[in-house]
Parts: sequence; structure tokens; C-alpha cells
Amino acid sequence: MSGVVVTGCPRVPGEIAAEFASLSVATVHEAQGRVGQLASYMRPIYEGARAVGTAVTVLKAPCDNWMLHVAVEQCQEEDILVVAPTSPSDAGFFGELLAASLLVRGVRGLIIEGGCRDTKELKEMGFPVWSRAVTSQGTVKETLGSVNVPIVCAGQIVSPGDLIVADDDGVVVVQRLQAKIVATKSIAREEKEAATRKRLKAGELGLDIYNMRGELAEKGLLYKPYEGVA
Amino acid sequence: MSGVVVTGCPRVPGEIAAEFASLSVATVHEAQGRVGQLASYMRPIYEGARAVGTAVTVLKAPCDNWMLHVAVEQCQEEDILVVAPTSPSDAGFFGELLAASLLVRGVRGLIIEGGCRDTKELKEMGFPVWSRAVTSQGTVKETLGSVNVPIVCAGQIVSPGDLIVADDDGVVVVQRLQAKIVATKSIAREEKEAATRKRLKAGELGLDIYNMRGELAEKGLLYKPYEGVA
Amino acid sequence: MSGVVVTGCPRVPGEIAAEFASLSVATVHEAQGRVGQLASYMRPIYEGARAVGTAVTVLKAPCDNWMLHVAVEQCQEEDILVVAPTSPSDAGFFGELLAASLLVRGVRGLIIEGGCRDTKELKEMGFPVWSRAVTSQGTVKETLGSVNVPIVCAGQIVSPGDLIVADDDGVVVVQRLQAKIVATKSIAREEKEAATRKRLKAGELGLDIYNMRGELAEKGLLYKPYEGVA
Amino acid sequence: MSGVVVTGCPRVPGEIAAEFASLSVATVHEAQGRVGQLASYMRPIYEGARAVGTAVTVLKAPCDNWMLHVAVEQCQEEDILVVAPTSPSDAGFFGELLAASLLVRGVRGLIIEGGCRDTKELKEMGFPVWSRAVTSQGTVKETLGSVNVPIVCAGQIVSPGDLIVADDDGVVVVQRLQAKIVATKSIAREEKEAATRKRLKAGELGLDIYNMRGELAEKGLLYKPYEGVA
Amino acid sequence: MSGVVVTGCPRVPGEIAAEFASLSVATVHEAQGRVGQLASYMRPIYEGARAVGTAVTVLKAPCDNWMLHVAVEQCQEEDILVVAPTSPSDAGFFGELLAASLLVRGVRGLIIEGGCRDTKELKEMGFPVWSRAVTSQGTVKETLGSVNVPIVCAGQIVSPGDLIVADDDGVVVVQRLQAKIVATKSIAREEKEAATRKRLKAGELGLDIYNMRGELAEKGLLYKPYEGVA
Amino acid sequence: MSGVVVTGCPRVPGEIAAEFASLSVATVHEAQGRVGQLASYMRPIYEGARAVGTAVTVLKAPCDNWMLHVAVEQCQEEDILVVAPTSPSDAGFFGELLAASLLVRGVRGLIIEGGCRDTKELKEMGFPVWSRAVTSQGTVKETLGSVNVPIVCAGQIVSPGDLIVADDDGVVVVQRLQAKIVATKSIAREEKEAATRKRLKAGELGLDIYNMRGELAEKGLLYKPYEGVA
Repeated sequence: MSGVVVTGCPRVPGEIAAEFASLSVATVHEAQGRVGQLASYMRPIYEGARAVGTAVTVLKAPCDNWMLHVAVEQCQEEDILVVAPTSPSDAGFFGELLAASLLVRGVRGLIIEGGCRDTKELKEMGFPVWSRAVTSQGTVKETLGSVNVPIVCAGQIVSPGDLIVADDDGVVVVQRLQAKIVATKSIAREEKEAATRKRLKAGELGLDIYNMRGELAEKGLLYKPYEGVA
Repeated sequence: MSGVVVTGCPRVPGEIAAEFASLSVATVHEAQGRVGQLASYMRPIYEGARAVGTAVTVLKAPCDNWMLHVAVEQCQEEDILVVAPTSPSDAGFFGELLAASLLVRGVRGLIIEGGCRDTKELKEMGFPVWSRAVTSQGTVKETLGSVNVPIVCAGQIVSPGDLIVADDDGVVVVQRLQAKIVATKSIAREEKEAATRKRLKAGELGLDIYNMRGELAEKGLLYKPYEGVA
Repeated sequence: MSGVVVTGCPRVPGEIAAEFASLSVATVHEAQGRVGQLASYMRPIYEGARAVGTAVTVLKAPCDNWMLHVAVEQCQEEDILVVAPTSPSDAGFFGELLAASLLVRGVRGLIIEGGCRDTKELKEMGFPVWSRAVTSQGTVKETLGSVNVPIVCAGQIVSPGDLIVADDDGVVVVQRLQAKIVATKSIAREEKEAATRKRLKAGELGLDIYNMRGELAEKGLLYKPYEGVA
Repeated sequence: MSGVVVTGCPRVPGEIAAEFASLSVATVHEAQGRVGQLASYMRPIYEGARAVGTAVTVLKAPCDNWMLHVAVEQCQEEDILVVAPTSPSDAGFFGELLAASLLVRGVRGLIIEGGCRDTKELKEMGFPVWSRAVTSQGTVKETLGSVNVPIVCAGQIVSPGDLIVADDDGVVVVQRLQAKIVATKSIAREEKEAATRKRLKAGELGLDIYNMRGELAEKGLLYKPYEGVA
Repeated sequence: MSGVVVTGCPRVPGEIAAEFASLSVATVHEAQGRVGQLASYMRPIYEGARAVGTAVTVLKAPCDNWMLHVAVEQCQEEDILVVAPTSPSDAGFFGELLAASLLVRGVRGLIIEGGCRDTKELKEMGFPVWSRAVTSQGTVKETLGSVNVPIVCAGQIVSPGDLIVADDDGVVVVQRLQAKIVATKSIAREEKEAATRKRLKAGELGLDIYNMRGELAEKGLLYKPYEGVA
Repeated sequence: MSGVVVTGCPRVPGEIAAEFASLSVATVHEAQGRVGQLASYMRPIYEGARAVGTAVTVLKAPCDNWMLHVAVEQCQEEDILVVAPTSPSDAGFFGELLAASLLVRGVRGLIIEGGCRDTKELKEMGFPVWSRAVTSQGTVKETLGSVNVPIVCAGQIVSPGDLIVADDDGVVVVQRLQAKIVATKSIAREEKEAATRKRLKAGELGLDIYNMRGELAEKGLLYKPYEGVA
């Protein structure tokens, strides 16, 4: 399905997206069953970057950023642009001019399986990007791609309207129809972890908090003094 | 041509180099026709690093940094040392002692297809380095190489006296005799981009500013409502 | 030797470890004969991270972080946890809950040939980690490993009780019984470098300080003016 | 959707699959618009390997091959097993015992984003495998995954019942409902290429066959004699 | 311990080594508890390569093959030379002249974490090599290393006298004192697999042979018809 | 210099190229002082591939193979096409149709820093290719590049008319004006190696043939019996 722009895609509703506002990538990833994490080569271009929003997807030719301009028009407040090439390319698809255009529309950030340029300017603008490479290697505007079709970005399927959470730990995608339940599970997980954190800080061991000693012994874990081993 | 130090190389004149003082790697790379960008694995050792200067080139044996000492003597005010091994090596060829020596001579930075150590000290000294790896893995001083011969560094040919621009986006090389014209084109590009930026920030779309709609339609781009696709 | 926890391991004594307090990875690596540097893909999760301490080692199944909980109990004041999987995996074995637990026990940091999550929180807590990847990809708790056996971490053998120095340049391991002599050599090296640094800053060349000109000439290094070459 | 085995999936019908019997990966990939090629790190374990069949998909935990046993039961004549882990792992998920079991059921081959062992035996059995690594690194059987859900394998979405063509050039996936039209286009492409091949072998140039000279000139291609350039 | 050649190292006795003559890397690796497999980037330089023997280890400077000449003298009938650099290097440390010298002494093969040249000649001579790269990039003879000290090769500790098995699946190391027991376990495993293979070829499923259905159900595996899912 | 085809380039004369007919990449690389070896990721697409010839160079846009068609016309008997992209791309730039066209003109092979498709057909045609990847990922024909300008291919500068030798060990480039002297040195080296080979096969050690024992002892190499070390 190349050369298609799908319009009017449903998105995770704003009130549900808002529940993810302070959730970390790690928590969301765990809460939805350890799925949805994009490959670890997707790194923020500056420390402390964070974004939560709904995906507008772009499938584009390698070394070609034409479709990014098409995609801008499809973006609305609280979206995140998620971009993947049809074959691997680290060229610098994105820079501060496109970011300026996205910022005007209220877009929260960019996830791009490729290169990003103008990183200093993007940091100053407060526009966060997660990319596979930083490079200014230029691109052309020759080949059609598609906007708002399901894509594979850094090993994960991203569909238009899915929820994206991105922070210093990387990027996680939550399927649109799962967002409500994942938010609930994430918040529950955070509360549980807060309680655990308190106990750990008080000096209790995970071995005891999680009741691991029995199963470890059952599987045969042995403790031997150093003198007997060396 | 191993074991040769070429002396008295011509360099891009200082008044031309000065025109690049505030130009970004991205702008220069685009202005000279999307060539000259070193591979994206060449990264600054600290955020915000930036250097502009004329190349003194070093071709050296892998795991051997002897020729760096030879090269220091060939450096003068506003030079940038550009170093490549004869076969791949990430050993830590460069550290703060060599940097101290280069700083005294007015050298602006180092581009090294290999490893760099003492990154904390280099940041404190304000001596920027773009390298392929950060490591303290030591090197020997056994094998001759050459200074100020044309080299291949991170995929690009760099000749002595060429102009180097390096910032957070990586490194670009401008051939010595092209420097004047590239400076002019870069500045023109910046001015054009400033006008575009203004329009984008006012909410105009790149689709309209660059007149893309016609060509996109001609190539067959279709807009389909979500209901018709899903 | 899987499923074993060795207890009561001897460590580099505190007064010897203290001698490394301000030594850099680069200096220690050089002083002990250019050995012991972990692979350069082991990077600190934040700039300025630094840790010195004695190793508690963990050998664990890939994609499984169960043994980290077992290892916490074996840690004491001034230890550093060093973790390697039995086969390559970049999953996110470690996060802030485990760090909280280690901090209570006075552990100085973590070296992990795998992934790390919660990097923002870890920075805020001041708990430094050197890892191969940053990712929140979750792990399971199913398979036994061992604690305080010799392991291979990022290409180097690390035994329990060895001394670890880690900073912005990476990680170096010093064998337990070599620690005293390496400390002495490192300090001597630092003093020698201080003298060299002073001379370099005064404008002397390494070529002269290290008496390199003779050997270079003997090996056949030639100086040729640019006009004769071009 | 973890822990689910979907049964009774529709597949590309046998008579359509048969049309791909002698089509190459390159032809199919081009015919369907240059999409569907798995990443180039997916290599056959022996030269001359080739397989055409319908996908049975497996989503499995990293370092765990339990679900492969579950998947075998779901395979039928002319299927190809396509396997992806939930996070990257090159462990050796597959060997000759599983191949023996698949061969009995008429399965045509295996595509696995991970490691493969027993490559010599697999070649002798005539069971082709395309994998990311060759290694005997063992795996466990602890964690549930799913069979016959859509997966991402080496960068491409593969759904159960899709058509897979794999040869020395790699692997391409054709969506189930597109198979008929892609077969038709591929065969047309082959015929066209046969005519072109004949002309090229007779010494005609692609420049003339494809009428490129005009467009090249229009874009500004210049021919300059060597003497004028050097 | 650099610059040391350890002589008279004990080796796995010939009659025990002989028990490994027809065992595969995969079997040995599994039989000793899924440990000892070298990293999967260690590949044979020709298909069908296989070697079994006792390790003579070499620790050498990167880009330097001097110590290989020293090591040859330490080799005896049925040894395998195992070579690792002190820091990563893919230079071509080894070629057919060294192989000729090793063949005279009855050496069975070479495992080298680096580059290998003359691959065509080595295949004709029947001298198998497992290496990280194939390249003719030359090396120097300048720096001392050590022979017959414990080394880390491709992620595994190899000590002199250990048993090495290498085939198309890669390389596995068996500790000297474990060799007898690992041989026994490997042979037992082979017999067990032969029985399983027979049943699988007769059409029985692994699900039944290994009694997996109960545990899968217990963990919650669900079977759903396609109509109910799509 | 983009969009230029340089015609009438001088080449290494046929009688000099003929002297390289049976020389290996390893010998030529050593004979010219260990320079000119392309990066080790450039691998032949089939075992036993070998080619010697004079370079016709192509600089092309990534993901675009238009200029290959332009280059065919510039090729003559005994040429080798050497192709590099302006930024990294592994797309499948080359297949059997282009090979058919080159074969008619007497071209000896292809060196391409990118992808190659139709590997089975190329082997059957006897047209050797050294590439960075095997993939059928398609390319476009949109952007001008240049033919017969100096290029960087896999880390080495290749100029039109240079001599290329490629075999199972990779690819080496010899500068046009150096070809005669490198041929002479290579043949001398071969003769010397033949004499050494004879002595090694007779059981003499390299330690003695190359007179290494003295220098090793001088640098401090120690021989210690195992009992004293363990």
C-alpha cells in the first residue's frame, strides 16, 4: 500500500493518553507483558528527552524524506510522528525546519528509524527525537511512501493512533485499543513498586520481599564458602 | 607513501575559514551538494562540541600513536588534526597530554577514526574531539606513518589544508579549493532557510511553501479516509 | 559451576582500594601494562559517572535477572557488582529498584554486559552504571546462575574481590593480588605525567621530551616540502 | 496476545503458491513494489538453499525455544515456519531434531530471526534454514509465546498464511491476499526481463534499451575527456 | 603476565580427547550445561571444517603476530592453537606459511579472534581455521605477548590443555579436568537423541515425547480457532 | 564533482596487469607495504571467486543504481567496475542483467560497497562480485552520480585505471602508476615465500628461519615450566 495517505484515523483518546503522562517506558513495557519496546538502538538525541502522544505513521523510501512533509499536514495536537524506511538507511531525514512545522501543530516528538540532524537546535527548541543515528547526510524528495498505514519501526509494529511513550530508556508502543487497560496496569504496577521501593530502602532484600529463597533452593542453588572453592 | 611528513602545505586562507565560523555541518553538507559528511559513527566526546579549522592529516598504523607526536609539530593556529589508521582500530590513540600540546599551538580540535581517552579532562580543557570510540586501551610507538598526505577518514577523503566543520551533527570536510564557493552557498542557504523557518513557524506547510502538492498528485499520491481502509 | 554462590570472598583491602580513589581508568590501564580494559561498548549511563570498588561477580542466564537478587545479599560496603550473561543479551537486567537495594548496602556501582533501564532515576539517585545497552526490555526469573565465580565481562576475566575502576573512559579491572603494585605504579605514572604536562603546556614538543627524533630518523621518516610532493 | 495458538488459519492456496515455484526472491520483491524483503542479515545456512511455502508464525521469548515444539503440530504440507523472538537473541533455537519432525510433516523450511545449530546435518537432510546467526548456544523451555499471530521478523510483518519465497538472495514475504496478483506480476516481469537479457547479451546498452540518455542529459550529466579533468 | 611462555603444560589425555572425535559442538555444549560456546562471530573459513584437539593458547598484541611464531614451537601432535589479541583487531594474523609449519607438527587447526588470510590455500591444505574475519591486512612483529596462559577468546576463558571442538556450528571449549565427564555425558546425550530422532521421524510430536502438553496448559496456553481471532 | 563521466581514462597497461594474473591479494597487499586492502566486510558472493583488472569507478546516490547503466558504456575488456555510494546503503544495486551487459564487454568483475542480488545466477554466469551485503532490496533511478572520478570504496581511495586484485581474501587496490613496481615486488615476495615454505614444511621453525630468538630474548621473553606457574 504505497502512495496512500489515510485520513481521519482514530487515536487513543486524550483522557486516556493523559494517564500515561508520568509513566516511564520501563513501567509501561512491563505492565503490558514485556512487549512493544523498540530496538535499543533508538536513542534520544538529548538527555532528559520525554514524549507521550498518539502515532502518526510514515512509511518512506530510504534516503528520501518527501513523505515527512506530507505527514506534517496529518498531524494534530498531541501526536507523535513515527517514521520507518522501506529499507535500512541512516540518512538524516529530519532537521529543525520540519521540527518548527511540527511544533506549530502541537506535535510532541519524533521517532525515526534513520538519521536526525540539527540536534543542537532541536534541543534548544525542546523538540525531542529518538533516532538510530545522528547525521546531516542529506536526502532527496523523489519517491512516494504512505502515511498512517501500519509500519514496522525498530522491530515493532506501530499503527496510526497507537500510544507512544518515549524517555531516556527508549520507546514503547501501546496498541490503541489496549491503551486504557495498559494505563491501569501501569499505575497499579507503580503503586506496587513504590511499596517495594520503601522496603528495599529500609534494607529488606528482594530475596525476602519476593519470597525467592524457597524456589532458589528447590532449583538447587548452593552456598559455598570461599575456602572450600578456591 | 609511508614514512613521509609533508611540510608547508597550503591551507584554506583564514578569512575564508572565518566565513564558516557559525555555519552548521548540516548547512555546509547540503550547500556543497550532499557530499563530504564523515560516517555517522564519528561522534563528539561531549555535547555542544564545535570546531572549524584547516586539516593537518595523519595516516598511522593501527594500535600505534607515534605519528601523532610527529604531527603536533606540523600544526599551527586554527588547524584541526584529522587522523586515520591504515587498518581499523578503536584503540585509544589520543588523550589529554597530546591535547595540551595541541592547545598551546592553537589547534581547534581532533577528528580521529579510532579511540579517545581522558574524555572528562578534554571536556574541562575545552578541547573537542570527534572519534569512533571512547576507550583508554593503550597504543604503542613502533611504526612509521605519514603526515599531510591525503587520507580516508570515516569514508571521506581528507587532504591537508581542507576545511573541517564539526559539531553535534558530526563532521564535514570541504575541499581546500572549494571552500570559498561552499561558504558563499552555505550563507545563501542559511538566508533562504531563515525565510522558510519564519513561514513554517507561522503555520504554513512545507507542502505549500515548496509547491509539492502538484508533483505528489502527479506521482499518484492518494488520500483515503480511515473508514474506507480499515 | 552453575547454581553456586561463593561466600566470604577476600577482597582488595580498603586501604589499597583507597589509593585508586582519584586514579583514572586510563592511568590504571597503562600502569598495569595496557591490560584489563573492558570492551569499549561498555559505556556509563550518564556523563561524569565514576566508581571504584571491589568486584562481586554474577554469571547469569541471558534474559534472566534472578541472580541479581541473590547477589545483592552478598554485597558489602564499597563493592561493585559485575554482571555477565552466559550468552549475549542486551535485555534490561537492571533498574532503580535493584539500585535502591544496592545503595542501602553501600555498593558503589554496577558493571553489566547487557541492558540497563531507569537511567534517569539512576542518575538522580547517583548510582552509576556501565552497560552495553540502555533498554527497558524486561527479563524473567527462571534460571540459576552463580555469584562470586570468575566471569568474562566484555572481554576481560573478572574474579570476585578484584578491583574495578570505572569512569567516562570505560572500565578497567585490576587483579586482587596485583592491586597494591598497580596503585603504586599508577601514582608514579601520574607524577611523571604531571611533569610532562607542565613541559607540554610550556610549548615543548613530545618529539623532544620523549627523544623521538633519533629513532624516527633511523626508521626512515622523511620530511618533504609540499611543492616537491604535489 | 501471548500464550495463544491460532488454529485453522487460511493459507495462500496451493495452486497460487505453485506459481512461485521457480520465481526468485529478487523478482517477487520487485514485482510487488520493492517491499517485503527481510533484512539482509537473514542468510541461508548453505549455498543453493531455496524454499517456497505458506507461513506458520511463531512469536517466542528470547533464549527459549519451547514454542517451536508447539508450532510443529500446527504445520502442514508446504508450510514454512517463520520465527521471531520478542527481544533480540541469537541463541541457537533450532537444530536437526526439530527439522526431522518438520520434514515428516512436509514443511519446506525455516526462517528464524535468531541462531541455528546442526547446520551440517540440516544440509544433509535437505532442510533449508535462513537465520541471523549460526551457533549451538542452547536455549530453555520456560516461557509461553504464540503461534499464528502476526509477527515482525527481520523488519517485516509476517502473518500466518502469507507466502514466503527464500533463496540465496534472502527472504521475501507476500501478503496472503496479494499472492495471486504478485505471482502474475512476477511472471510478467520475468518475461520482460528475458527479452531485455537477450538484447543485453547481444551487446545493446541499458542506456538505449531503457531510453535513459535523454533524461540523463536533462538532469545535467556531462561527459568530459580525461585530459580536461586531470 | 606478558612476555611469558609456559612450557610443559598438561593436556587432556589423548584417549579422552579421542572420545570427542565424532561429537558435535552442539552436543558437547549442551552436555556440559550450555556453557563454553565461543561467540557466534567465530566462523570456519570453509564449509565442512572440523577439528578436535588440545589448546595451546596465545595472548598477543593487536595487529601483531610475532607470538604466533613463538607458539608454533610449543605445539605438539593433536594440539589446536587458540589466539586472542589484548585489544580488538581484525588484522590478518595468520596465513598458509604458519599453517604449513603447524601441519608439520601435527596441529589440528586454529581458533583466532582476529583475521585470517590465504583461505583458499588453507582449504587446499586441509588446515581448518575459525576466525572473526577474513582479510589479508598485514601485521607487524614488535610486541611481546604470552603463550600458554589463560586467555579470553570470543567471550570464553580458554586455558592451556583445555579441549576444543570446532565444526560448522562454531567452537566450544571444555575445561581440561572436566573433559572425561563431558565426553561421557555427550555420548549419553547422543544415544538419547538417537532414540528421540527415530520417534520424531516416525511422526510422533515433541509435544508428546517430551510430555509438554501438561505444563503448557498449566502456564495458560490457549488454542483459538482463526475465525474467533480475526 | 557530481554528474560527470570522465572518458578516455588511462589504465594500467595490459602487459603489467598480466603480471598480477596469479598473484594473491595477500601477496600484493604485503608487497606494496600493507596498504590498499578494502575493508573486510567486502566478501565474494561465491567461494573461489577471483578477478584482476583495471578500475572503472562509479560514485552513486544511495539506494539508486542509475549510474551503473551509464558506467557500463565506459567499460572495456579487462576492466573491473568499482562502485561506492555517497552515503551508506546496502540496497541491491546490482544483478544478473547488468552482469550480462558487462560480460559482453569483457568486464572481469564488480566491487560494490552495497548489496548484490541474483547471486545464484551470477555464479552460474561466472561473474564474480565482492559486496558488503547480499540482498534483493530494489533501488531507484533518479539521481545523477559520476563515473571515473576518484572514489572511496570500503575505506580505500580507488582512482580510474587503478589495478584491482580480488580473491577469497578480499580486495586490494594498486595505484595505477605503482602497478609495475608492485608487480615486481610481489613476484619477488612469492619467490622468497616459496623458499621459506619449503623450509617450514621440512620442519624448521619460523623462530630460526627469521632469526627471532635473539630479539625476543632481548625484549625479555621468558620461558617458565608449568609447575612453577600454576
